[in-house]
Amino acid sequence: MMKEKKRNNLRMITRNEPYVVKVFIEDTDVGGLVYHANYLKYLERARSTLLYHKGITHAQLRENKKLMFVLKSCNIVYEKPAYLEDELFIYTEPGILSGACLKMKQSIVRGQDLLVKADMVLVCVTLEGKPVRVPAFIASALNIG
Amino acid sequence: MMKEKKRNNLRMITRNEPYVVKVFIEDTDVGGLVYHANYLKYLERARSTLLYHKGITHAQLRENKKLMFVLKSCNIVYEKPAYLEDELFIYTEPGILSGACLKMKQSIVRGQDLLVKADMVLVCVTLEGKPVRVPAFIASALNIG
Amino acid sequence: MMKEKKRNNLRMITRNEPYVVKVFIEDTDVGGLVYHANYLKYLERARSTLLYHKGITHAQLRENKKLMFVLKSCNIVYEKPAYLEDELFIYTEPGILSGACLKMKQSIVRGQDLLVKADMVLVCVTLEGKPVRVPAFIASALNIG
Amino acid sequence: MMKEKKRNNLRMITRNEPYVVKVFIEDTDVGGLVYHANYLKYLERARSTLLYHKGITHAQLRENKKLMFVLKSCNIVYEKPAYLEDELFIYTEPGILSGACLKMKQSIVRGQDLLVKADMVLVCVTLEGKPVRVPAFIASALNIG
Repeated sequence: MMKEKKRNNLRMITRNEPYVVKVFIEDTDVGGLVYHANYLKYLERARSTLLYHKGITHAQLRENKKLMFVLKSCNIVYEKPAYLEDELFIYTEPGILSGACLKMKQSIVRGQDLLVKADMVLVCVTLEGKPVRVPAFIASALNIG
Repeated sequence: MMKEKKRNNLRMITRNEPYVVKVFIEDTDVGGLVYHANYLKYLERARSTLLYHKGITHAQLRENKKLMFVLKSCNIVYEKPAYLEDELFIYTEPGILSGACLKMKQSIVRGQDLLVKADMVLVCVTLEGKPVRVPAFIASALNIG
Repeated sequence: MMKEKKRNNLRMITRNEPYVVKVFIEDTDVGGLVYHANYLKYLERARSTLLYHKGITHAQLRENKKLMFVLKSCNIVYEKPAYLEDELFIYTEPGILSGACLKMKQSIVRGQDLLVKADMVLVCVTLEGKPVRVPAFIASALNIG
Repeated sequence: MMKEKKRNNLRMITRNEPYVVKVFIEDTDVGGLVYHANYLKYLERARSTLLYHKGITHAQLRENKKLMFVLKSCNIVYEKPAYLEDELFIYTEPGILSGACLKMKQSIVRGQDLLVKADMVLVCVTLEGKPVRVPAFIASALNIG
């Protein structure tokens, strides 16, 4: 228990490199802010890039393992808005793994400001949509499980 | 108290007309499903259309009242996927109002299947982003508050 | 020859029903206008809807015929901008058919104003991307060829 | 005349650094390819980044000069499709400048393959949409005019 908590804290300290996003015109809306749904695209780019850095690609997962990840749930809080041409840093922390589910904590930061935080639950499914256990090599690559 | 609860129940029964969405190619991804971020666009179309039906437009809110709504948080659960050319029904129930915040419960349904449910919190802000009390005419139009 | 020309003229007169689009926040950008790439989405919705009205769906084309349409080229001119909450009418005229290629003329209109005109060339391809002759039942449904 | 042509040729040789794009899930569609409208987003990111590298930002243009660029026309040819996780190189060559109009030639390349080529015409307008001459400092920064 104690150990688990300590490991979790450590994981937060040794967090992965952030993924950097520049805000382009396509991301903004008439309010002059980044349109709320587009943050989910940023978060997905960051999750995918984390996998790429670990040597895992969606294309290989699909072709070789006949697997893909789908989003099960997203709990997102918008603290402050982002604007055109902002440079955003996206942090992604893979968390607890249970069966087919993989939890990730993500945040979007600009300078010292936390703009967005999100709890994502992903499910590993076959190409037909059947949930299956997250393969060990993915858990291992993400250093979880 | 009793009355309040009854009114709430009634409100759930006399729910607003659903907003209907057809799934186009733009909404899908390589997995053959609707891309997860695009459901947030559907939900926003449904919320905006609910306002239009009540005689409120974003353009008027912006120009006459110098107000807009921004999303504060979104808690969304993806139960089942939607596919190309599906016809989706989106239900939107405005809920509790407190100060600048407006809660809405939304769901996306295909036939008898619940695909997505979402709890949205919107904030009424000035064009500079300062939160302000939701105007009475909006609360009244939405039959809440 | 003469007949062909006459038939073409007639076809322009008896144009198909327009597809109606409402502009939502997702479609706009920081300039307060509809973001230029989003008009291509509107045009695609109109082309797909034209097929649906003729009894043809992309899903059936994919599953039963192992065919899909991809865009070969797009020549689009933006005459006037569209704004949030505008109601747009999209006209689609299937034109000359030659082998795997299908040309369509499209326009986006608001009230009396022509906002956008576009010449699209689509190619009928197998799911692996090989161009194939447009099936006769599609040419027939679209009343061309 | 001779000089002009020579300068143009030189300009093609000393082309700007390409802008690199990774294809994410958001960019793909049910056909497994990048959705056609999304290439226009890539092209816009490349044009904006070219401006940034020259020290010009849209935000400053809007706030200080009350100017923005809008797309007047786009002539785009799709030669080959792009797929999930492709790395794409986008080349942008600012071309002839005449009054309020700025022409740019763009191409999207993957390895040795030309995927997309596009001729874009942009117009410099006030925030109210009135065309105005492209400011000298922009022509100078882009090395045209």
